[in-house]
Amino acid sequence: MKQGFLLSIEGPDGSGKSTLIQELASHFSDTGREVVVTREPGGARIAEQIREILLNPDHAEMEAKTELLLYMASRRQHLVEKVLPALERGALVLMDRFIDSSLAYQGYGRGLDLEAIHWLNQFATDGKNPDLTLLLDLPAEQGLGRIQANRSGDVDRLDQEDLSWHQRVRQGYLQLLDENPNRLVKVDASLDLPEVLDQALQRIAERLSL
Amino acid sequence: MKQGFLLSIEGPDGSGKSTLIQELASHFSDTGREVVVTREPGGARIAEQIREILLNPDHAEMEAKTELLLYMASRRQHLVEKVLPALERGALVLMDRFIDSSLAYQGYGRGLDLEAIHWLNQFATDGKNPDLTLLLDLPAEQGLGRIQANRSGDVDRLDQEDLSWHQRVRQGYLQLLDENPNRLVKVDASLDLPEVLDQALQRIAERLSL
Repeated sequence: MKQGFLLSIEGPDGSGKSTLIQELASHFSDTGREVVVTREPGGARIAEQIREILLNPDHAEMEAKTELLLYMASRRQHLVEKVLPALERGALVLMDRFIDSSLAYQGYGRGLDLEAIHWLNQFATDGKNPDLTLLLDLPAEQGLGRIQANRSGDVDRLDQEDLSWHQRVRQGYLQLLDENPNRLVKVDASLDLPEVLDQALQRIAERLSL
Repeated sequence: MKQGFLLSIEGPDGSGKSTLIQELASHFSDTGREVVVTREPGGARIAEQIREILLNPDHAEMEAKTELLLYMASRRQHLVEKVLPALERGALVLMDRFIDSSLAYQGYGRGLDLEAIHWLNQFATDGKNPDLTLLLDLPAEQGLGRIQANRSGDVDRLDQEDLSWHQRVRQGYLQLLDENPNRLVKVDASLDLPEVLDQALQRIAERLSL
């Protein structure tokens, strides 16, 4: 039986995660491997309901720890219900956001205690880490500019945060890259899509025996 | 300015918590004190949406840790948004379920690690404990019998658990009573309402300077 692989794709909003994931899914499906594309928060029925609470732009009163706990609840349900069974079948799971998003956004972004977030990640996942994490890196201004250009008036709760917050998130991601050189690799998301895809495929080939 | 008090009311389903709380609210409102009656999960807009996910009888796939994390998210939001401001105003807050429910239900009931639940309670509340907790104690069979008699076909997700689970919850509550003699007091919930109310008022008078 084939070994399953968990590949998480991380990066600031507007870094092109979902486009890259579709390209990767198409590439690896062509090799005959089962590919599962999924996302956080969400990816399973209960987790999608939690996602709705999290991303509702009306929920300005949501407190930082509430938000973190909801992400963790969504993470747990999605992992147990969808990700682990797919890995057991030998699938390649491409995940749009996972444990590092909580550290980057709620930790470096909102200032919640990083040790507490590590504890919660461990609790919610029973210590299951991605086999590899692609960090789509680009300057915060550029990411925000892409979001604003791509959306036609629809703004979710998180888009309303200011630029300095997005800058802290980016610095957090780069810090995580420094601290986890065996798991995280950087992809330059300011390039055009074909180059981003090439870089991503090269990083994956260097690290995983797919 | 008056001091606020946080009084949580705990006990198995069918122990008469909400009826007692209404009686206590009426009693203490008559003394001119602001009384806030609230409940977990729920008690604030976001927390009520989390409650809907938790109590939906269709959500049979909900995993134990997901459930615990959702209760903690609801707890956090409700505490920050509703309970702490009421205590600052000097109110008496009567809370239907709080930190002990997670220990009794998810810990003793579902078998999740008690230390982890303590950690999460501490994280979600910043260590805010009730000033006093009334434990409405009655045999699990009796509680279940009351639930079945009172409902006309409506059953929520938690009612579907079996008797042995309700028995573990009761034993868990009694264990918490043993371990926290300064905070928890037992009220015999198998008595008739006037006697339960008398006992509760007496316990409150012994412990709090209201």
